[in-house]
Amino acid sequence: MSPRKRRSSTPHEEVAGNGLLNRRVLLRGGAMVAGAVTSGVTLTGAAAEAPLQNDAWSLEMGTVVPAYQVPSRFEKDVVRTRSNPNNEFRNSHARTPHHLLQGTVTPNGLFFSICHSGLPDIDPAQHKLVIHGLVKQPLVYTVDSLSRYPMVTRMHFVECSGNSAPMFSNTPLQVTAQALHGLASNAEWTGVLLSTLLEETGIDPKATWLLAEGADSLGLHRSVPIKKALDDAMIALYQNGERIQPGNGYPMRLLLPGYQGNMNVKYVRRIKLIDQPAMSFFESKTYSQILPNGKMWLFHFTQEVKSFITQPSFGHALQGPGFYEISGIAYSGNGRIAKVMVSADGGKSWAQAALQDPVQPKAFTRFRMPWRWDGQPAILQSRASDEAGNVQPTRAEFVAARGQTEKPVPTPLAFPNQHYNSITSWGIDSKGEIKHVYA
Amino acid sequence: MSPRKRRSSTPHEEVAGNGLLNRRVLLRGGAMVAGAVTSGVTLTGAAAEAPLQNDAWSLEMGTVVPAYQVPSRFEKDVVRTRSNPNNEFRNSHARTPHHLLQGTVTPNGLFFSICHSGLPDIDPAQHKLVIHGLVKQPLVYTVDSLSRYPMVTRMHFVECSGNSAPMFSNTPLQVTAQALHGLASNAEWTGVLLSTLLEETGIDPKATWLLAEGADSLGLHRSVPIKKALDDAMIALYQNGERIQPGNGYPMRLLLPGYQGNMNVKYVRRIKLIDQPAMSFFESKTYSQILPNGKMWLFHFTQEVKSFITQPSFGHALQGPGFYEISGIAYSGNGRIAKVMVSADGGKSWAQAALQDPVQPKAFTRFRMPWRWDGQPAILQSRASDEAGNVQPTRAEFVAARGQTEKPVPTPLAFPNQHYNSITSWGIDSKGEIKHVYA
Repeated sequence: MSPRKRRSSTPHEEVAGNGLLNRRVLLRGGAMVAGAVTSGVTLTGAAAEAPLQNDAWSLEMGTVVPAYQVPSRFEKDVVRTRSNPNNEFRNSHARTPHHLLQGTVTPNGLFFSICHSGLPDIDPAQHKLVIHGLVKQPLVYTVDSLSRYPMVTRMHFVECSGNSAPMFSNTPLQVTAQALHGLASNAEWTGVLLSTLLEETGIDPKATWLLAEGADSLGLHRSVPIKKALDDAMIALYQNGERIQPGNGYPMRLLLPGYQGNMNVKYVRRIKLIDQPAMSFFESKTYSQILPNGKMWLFHFTQEVKSFITQPSFGHALQGPGFYEISGIAYSGNGRIAKVMVSADGGKSWAQAALQDPVQPKAFTRFRMPWRWDGQPAILQSRASDEAGNVQPTRAEFVAARGQTEKPVPTPLAFPNQHYNSITSWGIDSKGEIKHVYA
Repeated sequence: MSPRKRRSSTPHEEVAGNGLLNRRVLLRGGAMVAGAVTSGVTLTGAAAEAPLQNDAWSLEMGTVVPAYQVPSRFEKDVVRTRSNPNNEFRNSHARTPHHLLQGTVTPNGLFFSICHSGLPDIDPAQHKLVIHGLVKQPLVYTVDSLSRYPMVTRMHFVECSGNSAPMFSNTPLQVTAQALHGLASNAEWTGVLLSTLLEETGIDPKATWLLAEGADSLGLHRSVPIKKALDDAMIALYQNGERIQPGNGYPMRLLLPGYQGNMNVKYVRRIKLIDQPAMSFFESKTYSQILPNGKMWLFHFTQEVKSFITQPSFGHALQGPGFYEISGIAYSGNGRIAKVMVSADGGKSWAQAALQDPVQPKAFTRFRMPWRWDGQPAILQSRASDEAGNVQPTRAEFVAARGQTEKPVPTPLAFPNQHYNSITSWGIDSKGEIKHVYA
C-alpha cells in the first residue's frame, strides 16, 4: 500500500508490511511514539531516588584534558578497516564504519581514504599548485596565497567508484555496511572555487579538458571536463573546519562534487588545461566500467543514486520484538535526494522514510523510518530517488545491465567492479540475527 | 553608505569605507573577483612545464595509513589551548582555535571542553540515565536501549556562558580569537529528543522544572524549565557522526540548543522532574550574571547573538596591500542569524556580508566579505543580527549595561564575567600587523 493512501492513518498504524509505521511520528519529534517503545526499564522507587552513586568515575578526579581530543578507549573498535595495514607496495584502503555511526557528517578520523602509495608527508610551506597549459597566464598558488581568495563552504560526499564492489559477487558476502559501502564519506569542505582561479589565469578558448595531477609518488592524474571545472569544482583546503587530513589530500585537493573519488585528485599540484582528454592510465584502464559484454564505459564520472540501511544492519542483533528505528544514508552525484522508500518485507511493500533536514545537494542525507518488529523474519531494504529523477535499481536490474562475478574482485581486472549502486538487503531471522541477503 | 544604496554598484566598487567590496562577488562563486586578486605569482613558461618534480613526497612511498586518522604533523600548533595542562584539582578549559579554522563545523578533536574534575573514563555499558521525580513512571535508559528510539540530527553550537570573558577587561588583551572566543564550538549532534523520553515516563502536571545531573565526580547539576525540555532538548549520543568525545559528555549529554554551555549537562545520569528550580550551587553562584550595580541575574539561559572575525585576526599578518577575504562566525541562541554587517573603518560605515548556506538555527553561520586593503590603517568589525531581531551590541553599549573590570577575571568572583557578546575589533596598521583594539 502506498504511503499516499495512508495519509490519514494514525501514527501507530502500519503504513507498509511487516511493521513499518508512519514517518509522521518522527517528523513530529517523537510525539506519540512512546507507546510503541518497549526498551525502557521500569525502576523501583528506591533505585530511582539513589541512582548510580558508586561508579568509579563519579568518585574520583578524571584524567588530563588533551590538546587534541580523541574518542573514548571504549570506542577502540570504531575505526577504519584497512586493506594494507603493513604498508606493502600497493594501494591502501581504509573504510568508514557506517554501521557504527549516525547523522550525516563523517568525522575526520573516520573519513575513508585510498592511498596509492602510502600516506605522503607533505610540507604545506613547500607545496605548490600550478595552473598552466591552455591558459592566458600560467600561475602558481601556495596554501598561503590561496588563504586570501574568496572561499566557499559546502557539504559533499566523496565516494570511490569501486565502493560497494563486493556486491558484484554472485553470492551475498556476510560483511558489514563498512565492508560493503565504507569507501564513501561526507564532510564540510572549505576552499577556493576552481572557477575563481581559472578566471585569474584566463582560459584559452581551445581548452576543453584539464589534467589534474597529485603530488604523492603515484602522481595520480585524471582528465576533467572544463565544464565541471567551471561549475562546482573546488580547491579544498579544509575538511570539517580543520585542514584536510593527510589521507584526504593535505594540504589541498581537487574536489569535484558528485564525481568518482579518484578524480577528486588529492595533493593536487598541477592542473593543465588541454584540448582533449589525456587518456591517462587511470582513466583508460583502472577506473573504467567493464560491462557484461566485455566492452567498457570510459568517463563514467557521476556517482549514481545510492542508499543503504546502517541501523540495524549486519553486525547488529535485534534484542527482541518491539520498536526500532530503521536508519541509513542516501546520496546522489546528481544533486539532492528526493525520496527514500523503505521496505521490511523484501520489496513487496514500501513506505516513505523521513529525511533529515537540511537535504543538501551531492551530500549524505540521513533517512529514518519507525518500525515495530513482530519477531518474525523480515528483509529490510531502502531505495533512494534523486531530484534528477534517478531511482536506485534493484539488484536484479543492476546485474542485468552491469554484470556480476563469481566472487568479489578486490583489484581492477577483467571483471565489472565499478559504480555499484543497487539496493542492499538485510535479512532478519526470528532470533533477531541479521544477514546480508540478495532479495 | 548603506549597502541598499549600492545595489547597482559594480563588483569591484567599494560598498563601504576602506575597501569593502560588493558581496555579490562571492555569491556568484568568485566570478569577476580575479582582477582584484594580486597574490598569484606568474610563472615563466619553463617552470610551468616541469613543475615541482623533486619533492621527497613525490619520489618515495609514504607511511602506513592509520585506522583512525589525525591531522598532519605540520598542523601540530592547531590544537586547543588548555588552562590546566597538569590536571591540578580545578577546572580544565580547552579552547577551539577559531583563527586557524574555516567553515562552520568544529572538528571533534578541536571542540572546546570544560571539565570540572578532569576527563572521566566512563564505561558506556555501565552508564545509566534515570528519569524520575514528578513523572508517572520512573525509567532508566542505557546507551543500548536509547539506540532503538527515534533520533534526530541537528547542527548546533554550544557556548560556555563565560566565553569572551577576557573582553570584560577594560584594556584590550593582545590575544587570539581562540583566547577570546574559544569556548564556543559547533557540531552535528544526533540523539533522542528528551520529549520522546518524557512522553514515555509521563509528566506529573506539577512538574515545571527538571534537575539534570552529570556522572563525573563534580556531579554538575542544573535546573532546566520543562518548557525547554519539551521543545528542542536532546539526549545526544553522537557528535559529528561518531560517539560523543570524552570531553564533551561521552557516552551521553543533555543538549539544550542555544542555552549556556554548562546547562548542557555532560555525562548526564539523572533527570529529576521538580516543581521549582533546585537553586544548585552552579546556578545560584557560579553561572550567575553579576551586574555593575552589584546585583545578579539568575537564570540567564540564552546565549545572545554574537559574531567575530576569524580571518584576518590577531595572530595573522597581512602580506601587503591587495585583495583579502574577511571571514568569521556568527551565531545566536535565539535562532537563525539574519544578517552580518562588516566594517573596515571601525564602525563608521558598514556593508552586508554574504552568509554561507544553509543558515541553520542556533548554529554557527560563516560570513564572508571581499576586501581590498589599500595599505592604510584599518579597523575590522562584524555585527550580527538574529531572526528574533536582536542586534549584537557595540562594546560601549555592552559595558554600560553589564560592566567591565580592571583586568580579566579567570574564575567566577564578584566581577561580571558572563554572557559577553559585544563586537570584536581588529586594528590593522600600515605594516599589516593586527592588534585587538576597543573601537
